[in-house]
Amino acid sequence: METSSPQSDLSLDSPTVCTILVNFIRDETHNAGFSRGVVGLSGGVDSAVTAYLAVRALGKDNVRAVMMPYKASSPDSLHDAKLVIDALAIASETVDITPMVDAFLATAGKMDNVRAGNVMARERMIVLYDRSARDGALVLGTSNKTESLLGYGTLFGDMASAINPLGDLYKTQIWQLARALKVPERIIEKKPSADLWTGQTDEGELGFSYTDVDRLLFAMVDDRRTESELTSMGFAPEFVRRVQRLLQRSQFKRRPPLVAKISHRTVNVDFRYARDWGI
Amino acid sequence: METSSPQSDLSLDSPTVCTILVNFIRDETHNAGFSRGVVGLSGGVDSAVTAYLAVRALGKDNVRAVMMPYKASSPDSLHDAKLVIDALAIASETVDITPMVDAFLATAGKMDNVRAGNVMARERMIVLYDRSARDGALVLGTSNKTESLLGYGTLFGDMASAINPLGDLYKTQIWQLARALKVPERIIEKKPSADLWTGQTDEGELGFSYTDVDRLLFAMVDDRRTESELTSMGFAPEFVRRVQRLLQRSQFKRRPPLVAKISHRTVNVDFRYARDWGI
Repeated sequence: METSSPQSDLSLDSPTVCTILVNFIRDETHNAGFSRGVVGLSGGVDSAVTAYLAVRALGKDNVRAVMMPYKASSPDSLHDAKLVIDALAIASETVDITPMVDAFLATAGKMDNVRAGNVMARERMIVLYDRSARDGALVLGTSNKTESLLGYGTLFGDMASAINPLGDLYKTQIWQLARALKVPERIIEKKPSADLWTGQTDEGELGFSYTDVDRLLFAMVDDRRTESELTSMGFAPEFVRRVQRLLQRSQFKRRPPLVAKISHRTVNVDFRYARDWGI
Repeated sequence: METSSPQSDLSLDSPTVCTILVNFIRDETHNAGFSRGVVGLSGGVDSAVTAYLAVRALGKDNVRAVMMPYKASSPDSLHDAKLVIDALAIASETVDITPMVDAFLATAGKMDNVRAGNVMARERMIVLYDRSARDGALVLGTSNKTESLLGYGTLFGDMASAINPLGDLYKTQIWQLARALKVPERIIEKKPSADLWTGQTDEGELGFSYTDVDRLLFAMVDDRRTESELTSMGFAPEFVRRVQRLLQRSQFKRRPPLVAKISHRTVNVDFRYARDWGI
C-alpha cells in the first residue's frame, strides 16, 4: 500500500510515534537484559517526555527518576521535575552534584561557562551510570535531534545513554508529543534552558528560535535541500551558513571514537552486530 | 598483487603498523581541525605507546600528558608515567582526582570496587575533556582491542576519546609495538593493572592471561572460528564460553547510544558522514 510519508514536514502523527517509541523502549530494554530504566529529570520537556514514555513502556514501578541540581540551578527546575514524578508516581532520588563539580572546579582555575557546563553534564552522567549499575536499570537518553545536529549538548555528558527514544525528533516535535502525552503544560510552555546560570535560555544562547532552526534543519538534513534552495525558501543566507557550520563542527559528537583500522575485523567497523558472532 | 595477509596471526609487522598509526593520528587530528593532542598517562603500556606515537605524529611540543592519580593509586604508576614524559620531553600536568571521586563516593553510600572504578575512570575523562577544551587538543584514546571485546573498560570513561590509535590492536600486539618504539622496558614488563587497589592485576581479575585470551579472541573474532573449531584447537570449552559471554554482554559498550528511528534521516544511521551534507 502506498501512503504519503508521515515525515513530509515537522508535524507529527503523535499517537503513532508514541507507539513506536514505547515499543522501542520496551524492546530495547528487554533486549539489553533489563526490565528497569533510569532517567535524569531536569525539569525540562525532553526528560519529562522520556519519563512518560518509559512509564508506558516499562510500568511505573520499573522507572526511576534522578534529579541532579547544582547550587546555581533554578529551584523551578526541581519543582517541575517533581511535577513529573508526582504525575507518574515513580520513585525518585535527588543527588546534589555541587560537591563533585566544585571539587573539579577547584583543580581547574578560572573557566568559562561552556567548560563548567560540560563538567556539570558529565558529573550527571556519572551519577546516572552509577545508579544504573546499582539498580540494574538502563540509562534512558533525553537528547533530541535538534541538539544532536547543532552539537548543542555535552559529549559523554547529557548525550550519553544506553538507548535514546527522542534522538530522531526535533525539539518542536517533542513539544507536540508532550501535548499528546499530557505532560504538565507549564513544562511544555517554559523556555528551554540548560539551567547553568540565571536567565539562560537555549534560544538566547543559540541566537535563533527552535521553530526557525527546526524548519531549516528539516529542509537541510531530511529534505536534502541545497544552499540556494534554502535561500529561495526564505532562509537568510547567514542563518543557513551559521547552521551549516554548527553541523560540520559538531560531527565528532555524533559518532563513536574513531579507531585506526589495522585488522580485518575492527570494532564498530566490521565487527558491529550480534549476528557477526552467531548469537 | 597477491600477498599473504599481514594479520594471519597476532604477530605484528611493527614498523608498518607504526607508520599507519602515526599517519592516522596526524591525519585525523588535522581533519578535526586540531594540531595538538592530549593523553592521559597511567603508567601502563597502552598510554605510553599512545604518547610515543603521538609525539612522532604531532611533534613533542604538540603533545601534552595528564597524570590523574587517585589516593589509592600506586606511586609506581606515577613514576612510570614520568619515565614516559621524560623520555619524550613533553609537557605534563598532574591532577589529583581524589577530591572529585571522594565527593561522589560520599553521595553514594557503600559501593563495590567495580562501581568505584567506573567513577574514577569517568572523573579522569572529565579532566581530559576539560583540558582538551582548554588547550585545543584532541583527546587521544588508549583503549585496546582486547579490552574492547571483553568489555573490560569503562564506557564514557577510559573508553571515551576523539580518536583511538590502539583500538584495533590486541594487548599482546601492543607489547610488540612498545618494544619497537623503545618504550622503557619496565613499563612493558610490568603486570597490566587498572591500579584501583593494591595488588590488582588485569589478569588476576579476568582469570586468564592476555596471551591466552588474545589467541582465543583472534581465532573467534578475526578468524571467525566456530565453537567446535575452537575446542579442536585446544581452547578449553569453559574458557570459550566465558569469553563468548563477555563478548555478548559488552556489546553495548562498543556502539553509540541506540536512537529510535522515526525520520528517514537519523543521526548515526542514515546521517553519518560529511559527504551526506556536501562538504
